[in-house]
Amino acid sequence: MINKEVTLGIDIGGTNTKLGLVNKLGYCLSDLSIHTGSEKPFEHFLDTVVATVNKLKEAVDHEVVIKGVGIGAPNGNYYTGLIEEAPNLKWGDKVPIVKEMEARLGLPTTLTNDANAAALGEMQFGVAKGMKNFVVITLGTGLGSGIVVNGELVYGHDGFAGELGHTTVFPDKGRDLATGQKGSLEAYVSATGIKRTVFELLSKRIYPSELRDITFNQLEAKHITEAALRGDKIALEAFDYTAKILGLKLADTIAHLSPEAIILFGGLANAGDLIMEPTKKYMNHYCLNIFRNKVKLMFSNLKGSNTAILGSSALAWTEIEKKN
Amino acid sequence: MINKEVTLGIDIGGTNTKLGLVNKLGYCLSDLSIHTGSEKPFEHFLDTVVATVNKLKEAVDHEVVIKGVGIGAPNGNYYTGLIEEAPNLKWGDKVPIVKEMEARLGLPTTLTNDANAAALGEMQFGVAKGMKNFVVITLGTGLGSGIVVNGELVYGHDGFAGELGHTTVFPDKGRDLATGQKGSLEAYVSATGIKRTVFELLSKRIYPSELRDITFNQLEAKHITEAALRGDKIALEAFDYTAKILGLKLADTIAHLSPEAIILFGGLANAGDLIMEPTKKYMNHYCLNIFRNKVKLMFSNLKGSNTAILGSSALAWTEIEKKN
Repeated sequence: MINKEVTLGIDIGGTNTKLGLVNKLGYCLSDLSIHTGSEKPFEHFLDTVVATVNKLKEAVDHEVVIKGVGIGAPNGNYYTGLIEEAPNLKWGDKVPIVKEMEARLGLPTTLTNDANAAALGEMQFGVAKGMKNFVVITLGTGLGSGIVVNGELVYGHDGFAGELGHTTVFPDKGRDLATGQKGSLEAYVSATGIKRTVFELLSKRIYPSELRDITFNQLEAKHITEAALRGDKIALEAFDYTAKILGLKLADTIAHLSPEAIILFGGLANAGDLIMEPTKKYMNHYCLNIFRNKVKLMFSNLKGSNTAILGSSALAWTEIEKKN
Repeated sequence: MINKEVTLGIDIGGTNTKLGLVNKLGYCLSDLSIHTGSEKPFEHFLDTVVATVNKLKEAVDHEVVIKGVGIGAPNGNYYTGLIEEAPNLKWGDKVPIVKEMEARLGLPTTLTNDANAAALGEMQFGVAKGMKNFVVITLGTGLGSGIVVNGELVYGHDGFAGELGHTTVFPDKGRDLATGQKGSLEAYVSATGIKRTVFELLSKRIYPSELRDITFNQLEAKHITEAALRGDKIALEAFDYTAKILGLKLADTIAHLSPEAIILFGGLANAGDLIMEPTKKYMNHYCLNIFRNKVKLMFSNLKGSNTAILGSSALAWTEIEKKN
């Protein structure tokens, strides 16, 4: 019967929520996506989740045993089971998702944020298999991170460890963030950050660029990647600048944790060598000599639309193992 | 008999080495200091240690059972048992101190660096008793750090985690360090760092200061503290600048680890409120809102000459507990 055991992974995003049944080997047996719709009442979301879980079970002819539920959500707090003040979810300041989900599904449920879930996904199913000390950096709209030390995810004293996007690069004078901070890492290194860098460079430089014909609201990270691959100087400089700041701050992270590897994940990581090669160079440049060229910088090998489900599922598997 | 059980704590410094017998409550029953003398052969040091341990046992009428040995040393590597490329010790690049000490003393021996030992000392005997997530910052000639996560010291993948003094404040253009790095934290925040700041301010400002009559080589951190207490404007500004950079980088550390507390330790911590109050202010200023005013900033309460011995002894006690 052990092959029929799965966990339910739920990844809650501002727009869509993905759900899937994943076995212990990381195989996703069935998955579905629903609209998060946080402008509607939280009850409505919970009902939709329950209906979707039933559909997932039907899709596999009910031949599975769901052992637990893992939820990845913005500002999801592992300790409290609350989604706390998530800017892109409108259900209130402290959403008791673990309690409500356990009441409806009758299954042990665990919550954390999406980057922490991604780190657990890498450790269970991805490139960090067998590693005990590593850091995952998610490069999406913002910059998230999940830290593993001695084989365990670092939640810290209050559940909010791993907010590397909110470390400071340019104190007091850098780019604004909605948090009120100035000059934070994620204002430079993220899909949004590199776009801001392109617009700064368009203002500073005088040479032509295909990016001069795209508005700020239209510009996406993939346009910058495509332009860079065609040799666009603005796009190439934007990648170099992004990598320099990422490398600088990863060197700080290495000085804290001396990890075996740092794993890049998410939209901007799709730029491949454009981001990997200069980041490696700068990271080693800013490292203390005892760390130089020792820490592996790598991409996640979890691909496809259900990667976030795998992370949330891994959270549930991790909790089950802790209890055994 | 359990009250007669002690561990031997050894703190190796560039100039002096301190040894002491410490019971499980953190009471140091006897202690002695010897010259490290690393210009002489390593064998000579080992022989002196053995003779000193015998003296320590005599001092307590041999009425103790030594259960283990903990060594704190610059660049001491927990995993390898080697002192690796310590700039102020001249016994070679990789000194097999654990192996040699075990051979001579016949006791299980563990090694780490002095800041890590200090963190274990705080957790066993000091203000971090009962804490599971905290960071100790040692402010001496340099800036060292020891990180505890989930109740365990963070050694990282290779034993060198916790080198916060080598994070970067001013990339590429800041003050030099002997490591070849530029603009690293310890070039600003340490007894040496604040002295360099005083000299920078003496060059920038035009108002009088009692510090204008002291040479660079004569100036010590305590002179700066005394001058600040008398209202010297250069000294006061030097403390504010030091605290600003420390607060900025501690906010980065908080974003990584979300610790319950950060504990300041060592020479510069003796400046009391002169360093504590502005550091608190800046740390909270640069923190992400979810961390603001939540992380305790405190001084170590381990005082006196045998503090370093307590840390090394705590390392030995920690290993004994792991085995039980």
